[in-house]
Amino acid sequence: MAADNLTAILYKINDIRLENRPIPEPKDDEVLIKMGSVGICGSDVHYLQNGRIADFIVKEPMIMGHEASGTVVKLGSKVKNLKVGDRVAIEPGVPCRLCSFCKEGRYNLCPDVVFCATPPDHGNLSRYYTHAADFCFKLPDHVSLDEGALLEPLSVGVHACSRAGVTLGSTVLVLGAGPIGLVTTLVAKYMGAKSLICLDIIESRLQIAKNCGADYTLQITPKDDINVVSKKIEETLGEKPGITIDCTGYENTVNIGLKATKNGGTFVLVGMGQDEVKIPLVNACAREIDIRGVFRYCNDYPRALAIVASGKVDVKQLITHRFSLEKTIEAFETAQKGIGNPVKIIIECN
Amino acid sequence: MAADNLTAILYKINDIRLENRPIPEPKDDEVLIKMGSVGICGSDVHYLQNGRIADFIVKEPMIMGHEASGTVVKLGSKVKNLKVGDRVAIEPGVPCRLCSFCKEGRYNLCPDVVFCATPPDHGNLSRYYTHAADFCFKLPDHVSLDEGALLEPLSVGVHACSRAGVTLGSTVLVLGAGPIGLVTTLVAKYMGAKSLICLDIIESRLQIAKNCGADYTLQITPKDDINVVSKKIEETLGEKPGITIDCTGYENTVNIGLKATKNGGTFVLVGMGQDEVKIPLVNACAREIDIRGVFRYCNDYPRALAIVASGKVDVKQLITHRFSLEKTIEAFETAQKGIGNPVKIIIECN
Amino acid sequence: MAADNLTAILYKINDIRLENRPIPEPKDDEVLIKMGSVGICGSDVHYLQNGRIADFIVKEPMIMGHEASGTVVKLGSKVKNLKVGDRVAIEPGVPCRLCSFCKEGRYNLCPDVVFCATPPDHGNLSRYYTHAADFCFKLPDHVSLDEGALLEPLSVGVHACSRAGVTLGSTVLVLGAGPIGLVTTLVAKYMGAKSLICLDIIESRLQIAKNCGADYTLQITPKDDINVVSKKIEETLGEKPGITIDCTGYENTVNIGLKATKNGGTFVLVGMGQDEVKIPLVNACAREIDIRGVFRYCNDYPRALAIVASGKVDVKQLITHRFSLEKTIEAFETAQKGIGNPVKIIIECN
Amino acid sequence: MAADNLTAILYKINDIRLENRPIPEPKDDEVLIKMGSVGICGSDVHYLQNGRIADFIVKEPMIMGHEASGTVVKLGSKVKNLKVGDRVAIEPGVPCRLCSFCKEGRYNLCPDVVFCATPPDHGNLSRYYTHAADFCFKLPDHVSLDEGALLEPLSVGVHACSRAGVTLGSTVLVLGAGPIGLVTTLVAKYMGAKSLICLDIIESRLQIAKNCGADYTLQITPKDDINVVSKKIEETLGEKPGITIDCTGYENTVNIGLKATKNGGTFVLVGMGQDEVKIPLVNACAREIDIRGVFRYCNDYPRALAIVASGKVDVKQLITHRFSLEKTIEAFETAQKGIGNPVKIIIECN
Repeated sequence: MAADNLTAILYKINDIRLENRPIPEPKDDEVLIKMGSVGICGSDVHYLQNGRIADFIVKEPMIMGHEASGTVVKLGSKVKNLKVGDRVAIEPGVPCRLCSFCKEGRYNLCPDVVFCATPPDHGNLSRYYTHAADFCFKLPDHVSLDEGALLEPLSVGVHACSRAGVTLGSTVLVLGAGPIGLVTTLVAKYMGAKSLICLDIIESRLQIAKNCGADYTLQITPKDDINVVSKKIEETLGEKPGITIDCTGYENTVNIGLKATKNGGTFVLVGMGQDEVKIPLVNACAREIDIRGVFRYCNDYPRALAIVASGKVDVKQLITHRFSLEKTIEAFETAQKGIGNPVKIIIECN
Repeated sequence: MAADNLTAILYKINDIRLENRPIPEPKDDEVLIKMGSVGICGSDVHYLQNGRIADFIVKEPMIMGHEASGTVVKLGSKVKNLKVGDRVAIEPGVPCRLCSFCKEGRYNLCPDVVFCATPPDHGNLSRYYTHAADFCFKLPDHVSLDEGALLEPLSVGVHACSRAGVTLGSTVLVLGAGPIGLVTTLVAKYMGAKSLICLDIIESRLQIAKNCGADYTLQITPKDDINVVSKKIEETLGEKPGITIDCTGYENTVNIGLKATKNGGTFVLVGMGQDEVKIPLVNACAREIDIRGVFRYCNDYPRALAIVASGKVDVKQLITHRFSLEKTIEAFETAQKGIGNPVKIIIECN
Repeated sequence: MAADNLTAILYKINDIRLENRPIPEPKDDEVLIKMGSVGICGSDVHYLQNGRIADFIVKEPMIMGHEASGTVVKLGSKVKNLKVGDRVAIEPGVPCRLCSFCKEGRYNLCPDVVFCATPPDHGNLSRYYTHAADFCFKLPDHVSLDEGALLEPLSVGVHACSRAGVTLGSTVLVLGAGPIGLVTTLVAKYMGAKSLICLDIIESRLQIAKNCGADYTLQITPKDDINVVSKKIEETLGEKPGITIDCTGYENTVNIGLKATKNGGTFVLVGMGQDEVKIPLVNACAREIDIRGVFRYCNDYPRALAIVASGKVDVKQLITHRFSLEKTIEAFETAQKGIGNPVKIIIECN
Repeated sequence: MAADNLTAILYKINDIRLENRPIPEPKDDEVLIKMGSVGICGSDVHYLQNGRIADFIVKEPMIMGHEASGTVVKLGSKVKNLKVGDRVAIEPGVPCRLCSFCKEGRYNLCPDVVFCATPPDHGNLSRYYTHAADFCFKLPDHVSLDEGALLEPLSVGVHACSRAGVTLGSTVLVLGAGPIGLVTTLVAKYMGAKSLICLDIIESRLQIAKNCGADYTLQITPKDDINVVSKKIEETLGEKPGITIDCTGYENTVNIGLKATKNGGTFVLVGMGQDEVKIPLVNACAREIDIRGVFRYCNDYPRALAIVASGKVDVKQLITHRFSLEKTIEAFETAQKGIGNPVKIIIECN
C-alpha cells in the first residue's frame, strides 16, 4: 500500500491544494478504497469558481471528487458484500437510513445524506478513502475503473429516464448535449425509446449525441423562435415527443420543451440553470403535461452498471481528457477554461 | 312531453338569448333527455364576458350549459344501458373513440372531443337535449337532479385528487376556496387525506371549506409574503403538505404552493389563471416535486356519483342560488356580478 | 420505574412462562419503553400450539408479543425523534437498512429483519423493552395505548388495501371476518370504497363487519357451491367486485374470490391458510386478474395512526378481552380455546 | 383487383375449406384490405383440432386467420388515417368503444370485442377483408408484410413484458421457447433486461431463443425436480429472477416459476395450459410475488412495430415455413403435425 494519501482539497474560490492526509480506517460497515478513477463534474467546477451551489457553501476546506471508482483494500468488521481486491464503483451519497424518505425508497431526498464533495462533506479525490460498503458496487472483470467512475453521471441519466417513464416505443426530446444530455440519450435508447432527437447549440456535441444513439439532432441558437424550433422537432420526429428531458434548465429550453411536448406527455428537468423561469404553466397543465424533477439518483447504480456491463454501449467515448492525481490543478483548469472542448475529464488517483 | 324546446344561446359577448329550438332526435347510440338541473360554471361566465377562452372562440351562436342532469325520454335504437324514465347525470364531453388518447384511457385529451358549450359545440341549457348514452350515468333514486348536475364540478375534484395521488394519510394543501377548491377539499377528505388546509382571500368561502371537511383554513391577502404563508401552512399542518392542489392558477398561489410543498411531493394545477407565471422551477425540480395538470375529468363521473350516493357528504351546500330556465339571463347576471356571493347557481330546465 | 421486568416467554409448545428479566439498556438509536398494551395475534397462538410457522421454528425460549404500545422512559444517545414521556406505537420489525429491499422502500421483504416474536427474535410482552426509535410512532394525546397496540393489525389492513389499490369508487369483496378481515373492511371503507361485501361462516363476526363499515355481509358454509356464492356476491353488489381481499387463504375462499373478481381486477391474499391450493390460474390470468400477496406492512404505521387519530372510526370495538401481564397464560388460553368468542385480546403490561 | 376472394373457412373439427366469397364493402370507418401475409397461431390449430377453446365454440363456419397484414385498396368515407396503397398490420380485435374497459384503456378486456377467428367472429385468411381503419397500422417502407403479420405475436410479447414491468436492469426468466416465449425473450431484451434465461424441453428451440437474445438457456425435462431447476436458474443468473414470464401454463412450469422468482418479484402467465393447477399460493403471496395475467394486447401494436422498424432485431427468423393461400390445408397440416419442426408458418394471400 502506498505510504501517502495525496488529497485534492478546495480551500476557497479558485484555490485547490494537494495535501497529504492520513489514510483513514474503515468503520464496521465501511471499506477502505484505493481510489482509481475520479471524473470532474460541472458541480465541482462550480464550487471551484463560486464557492457555493444554492445553499451549499464551502466554508471549510473540502476534499473534491464524487464520480469515482477504486479497489477495496480493507474491510470493516461487519462487511459481507465485498472482499479485498474487489474493484468497485462508489455511489457518493450515503443517506441516514432512518427518515421517511429512506424508508420509502427515495433516499436521494434524505435531508441528512452525506454526499461526497457537497459542503460540508468531503469527497474522494485522493489516494485512499473510506465509504459505506453497501454503496460500493462491485465491477465485473470486463468493466474498467474509468467506466466505474462514469456510472455516476450515467446514474443521473438512468434516474432521469426512469422518472420520465422512458420505455419501449417512447418518443424523446433531449435538450442539451452536455455530459448529462449525452448519458440521458444513451440510456433512453437503451430502454427502448423509438426515436430520440437531441438539441444543442454546439455542433460537435451533437455529433457525440449521434454516437450515443440519438436518431436525430438539431442545432439551435439562443435566438431561435420557440414555435419554429418546436415545429421542427415535431416534423423531424413525425410526431410530438411524449417525453422531453431538459438537461439545461434555461428559460429558453424549458419553454421549447413545454411547447414541444405532446399533450399528456412528461417533461423532466435535470438541469441546474436559472433560479426562476417564466413559463406558460396553465397551458402546460391544461394539456396534462407532467413536469418532474430529478435529483441525483436512487437505486440506479446497479442499473447503470447493467448498461455498461452489457457491452452494448460505449460510455468511454465521453472521456476526452485524462490527468494524474498530481496534475489535479491542471485538470480543473482544463475543465474551467474548456481547453480542448472537454466532455468528461478523468483523474487517475493511483 | 312539453311542446317547446326553450334554449339558452350565447350569440356574442354579453348577448344570451332564449329561443325555441326543434326537439332533436337521438341517434342510434344516443338518448333524448328532458333536461333537469344545469349549473353555471366559471367558464360559462368567461365566454359570456370575453367570447373566448384561450383558443376556443365563440364565432357562431352557441347553446350554453354543461353541468347538467335530466331524465331519459327516448332511446336510440342501440341503447342498452338506459331505459326511458332513468334520471341521469350527463358527462358533457364525448370523445372520438378512435385516437390513441381514447384507446389509452385518457379520452379527456382527445383532440376531437365534442364538449358541451365549448365552441363550436353546443351545450344543454335547454328543455331537451340528445347525448351519447354511454356518457349518461343513471342516478339512484336517492340522488337528486341537482346533485346530478353537481357531479360535473365534483368530477373535476375527483380527477384532480386522483392525478395528485391523494390517498390514506395524505397531507394536503388546497389553494383557493371557489367551487373547484371546495369540491377538491371534499373529495380529498373522502379519499382518506389525513389533514387538509385550505387557503383563500375570502373568509366566507373558507367557512364553506370547513363545512366541506377542511381541517384547517387560512385567510391570506395578495400582499402576504410567500415565505411567511408557506411557514404558516407548515406550522398549522405540523409538516409540509405532500400534496398541493392549486385551484387558482395565479403566480402568487403557484409560488406559495411550490414553496410549501414537501420534497418529493406533488403540486397539481387545476386553475385557469395567468397565461405565464414566473416560478423557481429548478428548485422545485431539484426537490423532485412533480407538477401535474388537470384537464376536465376522465372516467371520474362514476366515482363522483359514488361520493354523492354514499350520503356521507353534502354537495348541495354548494348551491346558493336557483333560477328557472326562463330566468337564465338573470341567473347569468347574478353569476357575472357576484350578486349575493354565489358559489353554485342552478338553472331548472323543466 | 418498576424494579421488575416481568416477561412472557415461550419455551416450547404449550409452555409459556412468566419470568423476571433484566431491564435492557437502549443503544444509541434506541429507546427504552415501559410497555403499555400488547395484543395477541393469531400467529402468537400458532407458535404456542405448533412451535413453528413455516420455516420459523421456536428452538430457543422466545419472548412473546408484537402488537404493542408503551411509553418512552429512556433515550439512546442519538435519538432525536422522541422524548421521555412520549406514548408510542411500536412497529415490531426492524430491517437491516442495507439490502436492496430496504433501499427500494420494501423493507418488509428484508431477509435480515429483526421481527418481534418471530423466532429467533424476541418480542415485547414484558414490563420493559428497547426498540429502534425510528420504528416507534408517537401517539397524539387522544389516542390510547390500546389503540396504539391495534395499529399493528390495522397496518396489515392498510398494507393489504394499498397493495389492492383500494381507492375512491372501488367495489370490494373481503373474504373472512376475523381480525384481519375486519380491519381490512374498516380501512377499505376509509379509503373511499364505494361498496364492500364481507363473507364469513360465523354470523357474529359479520355483525362486527357491519360495524366496521361493510355495506353488505354474506354468511356462507364450507359446502356452498363456488358459483352460487360468486353469483350472490355479484347480485348483492350490483356488479362484480374489482378488488377481492382474501383474509383466510383456504382453497375454497381463494376459488370463490377468483371466480367472483371482475375481469381486470385484483385479488389480494393476506391469509395464512393451506400450503397448496388448486386454482384455475389460466382462467384468472386470461381475465387479467392480478393476484398480489401481502406480507406484514411497510411504511403503513403512520397511515394506520392517521385513521385512528381521525376519530372517524372505532377500532377499540375489536377488543373483546383484557388481561394483566400477570394473567398472560390465562389470556393465551382464552385465545387458544376461543373462550367467549374473542376478536382481539389485550394484555396490559404495567 | 383480383376477381376472386378465395377464403379459408373452418366448418368443423378438421374440416377447413377454401371457398370464394364476395369481396366486402368497407363501412364508413373501415378500409378494404388486399391481404398479404397471415401467420398460423397455436389457437388456430386448437380450433381445427378441437372446435373450441374454453367457452369459444365453433358453431357456424368461421373464416380463419388473425395474424395478418395487407395493403389498403379502398377507404370508408370517414377514414383519415390511411390512404389507398398503404401497407398495414392488422390488429385483429375491434372493441365496442363504449364500455368501461374501453374507456379506461383496457380494451383487450372488452366483453363485446369482435376478434378475428374467435367464434363467432370471422378472421382474415382470404384475398380481401375489411377492418376498422384505426386498428390498421401503416408499415414503413422497410418493413415487410411478413413482419407486419408477425406484429401479432410480437404484441403479445410486448403486452407480457409491459404487464411484467420489464425495464432497464430486469433479471428475467422465460418459461417456454415456443413462438410466444421467443417473442417475449426478444422484447424483454429490447426493453433493457439485464439478463434473461429461457427454459424449454426442446434443444432446437433454445437455440432460437439464443438468437432472440437470451443470455442463457436451460434444457429441462418434465421429470426434473422443481427445487433443482429453480436452483440452477439462480446459479446461472447469479441471483433469483425478479420477473418470470410463463409462456406455457402447465402446473410444472408454474411451480418452477413461482419457486424461482425473487421475493417481491412478478410472475406473468401468458400460456394457455391446464385448466387447474396446484400451487403454493400462500407462500408466493407471503413473499409478495405478484401474479399477473396477459390477455392478448392493448395499445401494443405501435410498440411492436417500433421494435421491428428499428432494424435492431430479426423477427423474420421465426418464420420457418411458407405456403400460398391455395395451399392453406397443407399449411395447417404442417402446423398440426409439427412437420419440419415449425415455429411460425406464413400463408401468402395474394
